Amino acid sequence: MSFTVRNPEYEARIRERFATTGTMETLAARLMRLAPGEADLELPFRHGLSQTNGFFHGGIIGTMLDTACGYASLTLMRAEDEVLTVEYKTNFLAPAAGELLLARGRVMRNGRRIIVCEADGVMKGAGGREKLVARMTATMMAVQLRPQGI
Amino acid sequence: MSFTVRNPEYEARIRERFATTGTMETLAARLMRLAPGEADLELPFRHGLSQTNGFFHGGIIGTMLDTACGYASLTLMRAEDEVLTVEYKTNFLAPAAGELLLARGRVMRNGRRIIVCEADGVMKGAGGREKLVARMTATMMAVQLRPQGI
Amino acid sequence: MSFTVRNPEYEARIRERFATTGTMETLAARLMRLAPGEADLELPFRHGLSQTNGFFHGGIIGTMLDTACGYASLTLMRAEDEVLTVEYKTNFLAPAAGELLLARGRVMRNGRRIIVCEADGVMKGAGGREKLVARMTATMMAVQLRPQGI
Amino acid sequence: MSFTVRNPEYEARIRERFATTGTMETLAARLMRLAPGEADLELPFRHGLSQTNGFFHGGIIGTMLDTACGYASLTLMRAEDEVLTVEYKTNFLAPAAGELLLARGRVMRNGRRIIVCEADGVMKGAGGREKLVARMTATMMAVQLRPQGI
Repeated sequence: MSFTVRNPEYEARIRERFATTGTMETLAARLMRLAPGEADLELPFRHGLSQTNGFFHGGIIGTMLDTACGYASLTLMRAEDEVLTVEYKTNFLAPAAGELLLARGRVMRNGRRIIVCEADGVMKGAGGREKLVARMTATMMAVQLRPQGI
Repeated sequence: MSFTVRNPEYEARIRERFATTGTMETLAARLMRLAPGEADLELPFRHGLSQTNGFFHGGIIGTMLDTACGYASLTLMRAEDEVLTVEYKTNFLAPAAGELLLARGRVMRNGRRIIVCEADGVMKGAGGREKLVARMTATMMAVQLRPQGI
Repeated sequence: MSFTVRNPEYEARIRERFATTGTMETLAARLMRLAPGEADLELPFRHGLSQTNGFFHGGIIGTMLDTACGYASLTLMRAEDEVLTVEYKTNFLAPAAGELLLARGRVMRNGRRIIVCEADGVMKGAGGREKLVARMTATMMAVQLRPQGI
Repeated sequence: MSFTVRNPEYEARIRERFATTGTMETLAARLMRLAPGEADLELPFRHGLSQTNGFFHGGIIGTMLDTACGYASLTLMRAEDEVLTVEYKTNFLAPAAGELLLARGRVMRNGRRIIVCEADGVMKGAGGREKLVARMTATMMAVQLRPQGI
């Protein structure tokens, strides 16, 4: 798929957003690659992100995938548009046991208002081996920011 | 709906689990009420749980609703069963702006292996007024724990 | 919940639509009750609507629930708006064995563009007993019809 | 991905099932290709499968995708296992306008009990051009058939 970029400054916009979003700081997530229609993040494991068996909590995985979908959508939006998550759905495919979670979001359909994204949650293991542990489908919406002063 | 409780110690089991789950500690969530097929949690707002507009992050809401569904399922399981999240789906209905998020999970269908739950994300406002901001449907699975020592 | 009706002729509009929709005729569905934010349909069982075990096919149940959600949304829309299904998600809770399927849709959140609906698939059995067999959550969108002649 | 086939007679089993399933006959669907973890079906358009604007009804698309996921799952199951749809979720990406709908299901994760599938709804247009109009994620479950006579 090839996408049209309408805000050439999208990378600066998203990186600034990432740096000031409380949840990303609390998780200690890292924003990695951005490209038109794509966004990759990483999250190192620690006890504070675990569920009862010592793996990544499914909600934390969902938070990373939701963020990857939001940023992937933002790469294609105008500077005056904001992104909202309408809904997301995640299937958990395998226990998220390991040291590093990769969250890879991509735009599947870039409509005028509705953007449909997919994201993969991948555990990176020894020797760089990767295992798909979760798959999200998310529906995002572009909404116009209100002009300042109104 | 009325449910059969097969582990009379479910409340102790779930409260101990809550107290030792890293993600619940990181979020500073509170486990409130437990009843057969139901679980309620609360989460006070802080910047560290926010998305870009200063509301609760959708992924954090999802984490609370997933946990409420998991605990609601555990109230009905045998002591030797563990709960897994197969998948969840969340619709976001309104901005989650406010000081306190309530997560209310309930079992909709308690099958032998598959448990289907719903959970409401509710913002509690001034004067106790409540606003529904998110609705999750989750598919959980009961799996038997392996006997100790094997 | 209470909703504002913006098209007082909604019932006539929806009943005409139902009468001219090919799929509803193929299924031999019946449109029952309409009310602001609600729509009920019925479908008698026959072999031609079955899956391999002789119950209602899950896709047919989904078709009825999707239609109930669409009509529930239309009861609240302006005459110049059309409804689109953005996405739907259905959990199957029990085998749909029986003579009559009831599909009951309701609007959960009526936004300016996005309408979130729920629908229940219910089997009606002997003596009027009802059993919930499926639950759908659907995201619908209101789009403005293009003026005639353009 | 590579899958292990446990029932070498899977193709005969699925084709017999297809031939005797009432809903597939009512729709006039065609079962095309089967391969380990994959199933493709086709459905020619007619008025009796339409929604209000004359496109394929979203529920009919969902029926085809659900069936493709079920058959994809069956290619990997033992002869004594039956497949159930636990839940499915479909995003509609573009109007399903055209003469032929392709439904392509594939297994994404083949667990012991839970099988997660994806399916694409594709419209085939003039000159063989294809357009993705819907994407389903489905959770299927393998259940053991009860022995005869019990």
